[in-house]
Amino acid sequence: MKKKSYFRPAVDAMKGYTPGKQIRGRKVIKLNTNENPYPASPNVQKVLQNINMDDLRRYPQPMGDDVRDTIAKLFGFDRDNIILGNGSDDILTIAIRCFAGEGDSIAVVEPTYSLYKVLSEIQGAKTISIPLEEGFSLPQNLAQKVSTAKLLLIPRPNAPTGNVFPMAEMRELCETFAGVVLIDEAYADFADDNCVELAKEYSNVIVSRTLSKSYSLAGIRFGFAMASKDIIAGMLKVKDSYNVNFLTQKVADAALKDQDYLAEITAKVCATRKWLTSRLTELGFEVLASQTNFLFTAPPDNNGEGYYNYLRENDYLTRYFPGEVTGRFVRISIGTQEEMQSLFELTELRFK
Amino acid sequence: MKKKSYFRPAVDAMKGYTPGKQIRGRKVIKLNTNENPYPASPNVQKVLQNINMDDLRRYPQPMGDDVRDTIAKLFGFDRDNIILGNGSDDILTIAIRCFAGEGDSIAVVEPTYSLYKVLSEIQGAKTISIPLEEGFSLPQNLAQKVSTAKLLLIPRPNAPTGNVFPMAEMRELCETFAGVVLIDEAYADFADDNCVELAKEYSNVIVSRTLSKSYSLAGIRFGFAMASKDIIAGMLKVKDSYNVNFLTQKVADAALKDQDYLAEITAKVCATRKWLTSRLTELGFEVLASQTNFLFTAPPDNNGEGYYNYLRENDYLTRYFPGEVTGRFVRISIGTQEEMQSLFELTELRFK
Repeated sequence: MKKKSYFRPAVDAMKGYTPGKQIRGRKVIKLNTNENPYPASPNVQKVLQNINMDDLRRYPQPMGDDVRDTIAKLFGFDRDNIILGNGSDDILTIAIRCFAGEGDSIAVVEPTYSLYKVLSEIQGAKTISIPLEEGFSLPQNLAQKVSTAKLLLIPRPNAPTGNVFPMAEMRELCETFAGVVLIDEAYADFADDNCVELAKEYSNVIVSRTLSKSYSLAGIRFGFAMASKDIIAGMLKVKDSYNVNFLTQKVADAALKDQDYLAEITAKVCATRKWLTSRLTELGFEVLASQTNFLFTAPPDNNGEGYYNYLRENDYLTRYFPGEVTGRFVRISIGTQEEMQSLFELTELRFK
Repeated sequence: MKKKSYFRPAVDAMKGYTPGKQIRGRKVIKLNTNENPYPASPNVQKVLQNINMDDLRRYPQPMGDDVRDTIAKLFGFDRDNIILGNGSDDILTIAIRCFAGEGDSIAVVEPTYSLYKVLSEIQGAKTISIPLEEGFSLPQNLAQKVSTAKLLLIPRPNAPTGNVFPMAEMRELCETFAGVVLIDEAYADFADDNCVELAKEYSNVIVSRTLSKSYSLAGIRFGFAMASKDIIAGMLKVKDSYNVNFLTQKVADAALKDQDYLAEITAKVCATRKWLTSRLTELGFEVLASQTNFLFTAPPDNNGEGYYNYLRENDYLTRYFPGEVTGRFVRISIGTQEEMQSLFELTELRFK
């Protein structure tokens, strides 16, 4: 006899998202969730050492106006163009709940951040999935192909492939798509350019950011989005009243104000990325041109799973995405230069 | 011409929740959002002074297993009976998304926590609202009255009235209601008893808690829920992957482990509550028997708004809920004994 379920059918039907493993105890070089190998700005520790208990006893600013002002100043917006999230996952959830009801469609281009489909399932929405073309490039006439979707979720740089879609194609997409385009710029601080201007120009464009990667603050859960005031006003109605806690607001504000430090550590990561890209290419690996803090790379034998397992056996945890398109590849987060040197030496042992 | 909206009709139609004012700058005795007047456990400050930056750089535990274990031990559950939330508002959002789809119904008994209706609106669900009876008691045959609802949200002690519904009636409700009963125990640490045993006995019962009131930690956003393993497993699929950040997990764990301190400060609040209840009653106020850290009280002239404004003009910020049923009353958070003494002196000036 089938057990009675209290859940919505959409929830019963779904499997749920599997986050990258958080290994504890065992000594492992963790290169599987694109965390930054360098610590956050020294200002963060100072903030935490001077927290007033009186501030913890009280509710935080509901919309986080101090941090919104900091972000607005950094990117040339008004406060009302900014919404904060409990990580950029929260921004994604808010956007889906704003723009797509049960039975509506959400569009993605695959391979993409696997959470999108899960969030769509939770909402009971349909996911229209369009494959990327040769070299993981944007399909021609994408806007028409997904024209029935209310919301298009698109990472730029893309994950897990690491490449960027050309700005002209992004602009055309924003111009021609009838729904909302959410450009997930989780990795934009490692890229040559970004789409912030599109959020200023187009009333249907949202650009989201996170402090998890470039700011070395995955632990605090802080993301934000920039968009037209109308879009932000609606999103603010849907977010939890106090979705970003006081500590995270304080830490995020301190980190965002230290742009020199951000430039310094992202430059280090990009230099190591360049170095590893060259070395792996010399060794016969296919390495997609990355504008992120990870490489998406296929070993010479095109056996992604084999290379992933080899690294794991040697205590380097990376990420493998099975499947026809992605199965040749392994995604490697860029660690310190020393970590990447030892990973490369290990790789040479197998493939030289 | 009507401007094009990208939003779901449900979102366009709603007004959004208005959180209690967070006054800054001006010197005000803040008694409007039921914050605790005493600081959090001294262990909290220690934790914050010893945060390792390496932990912030990484993603937190997705489900917060360390804190879940602490909670499980405190309440006599297994880890799999516990889900953590980014505040108990997050728990409410997760529950609504789990159990009620667009067009489904959610039931509440009014007056109640005003957020419930807003969360229901966001989801596009219908709200069945049943008025409480004489003395804000539970209606007879409530389960039948809301029998079409998928989810019943009920605070115990109730907010904003502060009273508790008899345990026998709660048990009967859980027994006879066909959907899920979420008992919101935000104020249970100030009460004589609680419904945790009902979550152990009934597979359709969720009991939620928060550290915002009794633990003096509204700033960190930490709530949790206890229920059957099936219920928790489904809720875990719907929550954001990393919904509780590392700092909040650490602080919550430290606070939860200091039960002596919790007992000490809740006893102080309850003693002050008792004192203020007596004094206001002597002055001719109607004071509902409170098992929370606030009083819901009507002045002798039954002019709630007048009393609220009088207090506000004198720098005591309380909360007023307009309307036929609640408009006679003012909700006053219990502050320190000194704050309540001065509030009482001020009140005497007007009503003696």
